[in-house]
Amino acid sequence: MQGKLPRSAIDRRVLHSSLASLPILYRFIPPEPASAQTAASSGALPSWNDGPAKQAILDFVRATTDQASPKFVLPEERIATFDQDGTLWVEHPIYSQVVYCLDRVPAVVEKNPKLKNVEPFKTVLSGNREAIAKLSLPDLEKILVATLTGMSVEEFNAEVKKWLTTAKDSRWKRPHTDLIYQPMLEVMLYLRGNGFKTYIVTGGGQDFVRVYSQRVYSIPPEQVVGTAGATKFGYKDGKPFLTKEPKLLLNDDKAGKPEGIHLMIGQPPHAAFGNSDGDRQMLEYTGAGDGARLMMLVMHDDAKREYAYGPAQGLPASKVGAFSQALYDEAKKKDWTVISMKNDWKRIFAFE
Amino acid sequence: MQGKLPRSAIDRRVLHSSLASLPILYRFIPPEPASAQTAASSGALPSWNDGPAKQAILDFVRATTDQASPKFVLPEERIATFDQDGTLWVEHPIYSQVVYCLDRVPAVVEKNPKLKNVEPFKTVLSGNREAIAKLSLPDLEKILVATLTGMSVEEFNAEVKKWLTTAKDSRWKRPHTDLIYQPMLEVMLYLRGNGFKTYIVTGGGQDFVRVYSQRVYSIPPEQVVGTAGATKFGYKDGKPFLTKEPKLLLNDDKAGKPEGIHLMIGQPPHAAFGNSDGDRQMLEYTGAGDGARLMMLVMHDDAKREYAYGPAQGLPASKVGAFSQALYDEAKKKDWTVISMKNDWKRIFAFE
Repeated sequence: MQGKLPRSAIDRRVLHSSLASLPILYRFIPPEPASAQTAASSGALPSWNDGPAKQAILDFVRATTDQASPKFVLPEERIATFDQDGTLWVEHPIYSQVVYCLDRVPAVVEKNPKLKNVEPFKTVLSGNREAIAKLSLPDLEKILVATLTGMSVEEFNAEVKKWLTTAKDSRWKRPHTDLIYQPMLEVMLYLRGNGFKTYIVTGGGQDFVRVYSQRVYSIPPEQVVGTAGATKFGYKDGKPFLTKEPKLLLNDDKAGKPEGIHLMIGQPPHAAFGNSDGDRQMLEYTGAGDGARLMMLVMHDDAKREYAYGPAQGLPASKVGAFSQALYDEAKKKDWTVISMKNDWKRIFAFE
Repeated sequence: MQGKLPRSAIDRRVLHSSLASLPILYRFIPPEPASAQTAASSGALPSWNDGPAKQAILDFVRATTDQASPKFVLPEERIATFDQDGTLWVEHPIYSQVVYCLDRVPAVVEKNPKLKNVEPFKTVLSGNREAIAKLSLPDLEKILVATLTGMSVEEFNAEVKKWLTTAKDSRWKRPHTDLIYQPMLEVMLYLRGNGFKTYIVTGGGQDFVRVYSQRVYSIPPEQVVGTAGATKFGYKDGKPFLTKEPKLLLNDDKAGKPEGIHLMIGQPPHAAFGNSDGDRQMLEYTGAGDGARLMMLVMHDDAKREYAYGPAQGLPASKVGAFSQALYDEAKKKDWTVISMKNDWKRIFAFE
């Protein structure tokens, strides 16, 4: 059964979200480990329970960073990629970037009052949640184009920054960027401590995620690969600036993920983390290389602490983060690691 | 007067070239300096003569890395971008990547014999240099598409690598990647030693330059931004791979340079180096930001040790690397630094 916002609508566009300004997360992050060995013994990955998932990460890092290992990987080839929505932060019941776009509609209409009585803007302005949830894919695209393009890069960045400090998630009543999975922050930190470059490779908007990636994930903007639109260079009062154009350059989802990795990074990752069918090709591409490779999928099976969705293991289907039985079967066949949020994660969020 | 290969033909496509396997260059490179201060005193930039160009680089690094300086730049914002052709290596009389494409034509025709009597392939096969030099822009594009797309990324990389070890520049009889400007290697090294990330931002083909960027410039593939085509994800015998498609995603020249910088890096550089009108917008974009900014243009005025071309200062016009009087005037007006190869560089190449 399809949910309110069809996955296809969201996967394929400039979506996603986040943030706030409290540096709460950082209090819980252990210092960067000097090496795999010391990290393992001094308790890297403290929010992970012992088990095959944690062990797979430790084994991978040991194999790729020990010079005596036959699977040693040169530092310049240590690339790890992470999907964002559902892999690094909460995506349920609606991608945060979609919330941002809906929240921006009143400002767009204020600038262009003719839109007031034009669909889908009229429905969004009505505040009728059920009607909004039923918007069609073409309608959603109109909203995305109207709220994510047509302004300068600087204006866009300022708007997102402002929104992140005020918007709250509907369940936890916290800024969206509080809803980052603490165990995944620890994996990124652990990999970086062992010479890996960590990249976000998201179906969400590249420009959107770059606004908070450094603050929230310690990932600089140039290490965020996402769905990207063209910009147009121009001048205002003699000063150069870039305008965000409604022209899609990279649809960073499914096959677009390895294509985006090639465009933006230029070499395949040795480790890749995802949580849905949108990440399948990225994991296959990662696994196609020689030597040590780590492919992991986050499974949302913890209705109490977060959400439970996805057909794997008989969980109900969902509108976001579709993790199909076929993907689950492929993971088992290819020896990818499925992470159970319920069993593998001691803690989900830093604020717990 | 237009030269043999119109600049427009070459700027706008997937061009350029390089390499060989001798690590000769590295013998001449000084160790990475610990800080701007020690670098300056211990002789950073040894291939530069004292003068305003060298001083501009030293002053910029001092201002941006000294925490007490009002122009201090945070490490994560220290981005420097370098055009390649004519800025980092010889572009005259023909871009090396164009040589690569012409050299590949026989192999393409062997695979597809029908092309043997079809223009422009027939002319290239004839070996008639004058006729080849007169090929039109659309003809050149046909050659680029035939030699740079339609194969897997791995096949392309292997071909370029092989070519770089055998092809020789026509004047110096050396591998193309020997023809790197030693003073510019020293600038990149000096900037990196002071916490800057150095990027190549080239009108040449991104995939082409990435094949040798690590070896030649110590720049990893992900820090090469260039003219880029789409790839297509697929499977061969169940194994995923990417095919290079004849579809242009980014024309990384002129206005395309700041657009490419936004796409691939996500923030404007603090320092930018170029040598032609194709770099104008990149330098303007760099100069538009607050704080310390360094904009430099390499002027080819040394016919004896390299080449002299460009209309600035009454030098003859040229088919490549057009450095117009208008750009020269803009540089003077905006206080950009024009580097005289003749006066500012003690040595041009490492092999001298």
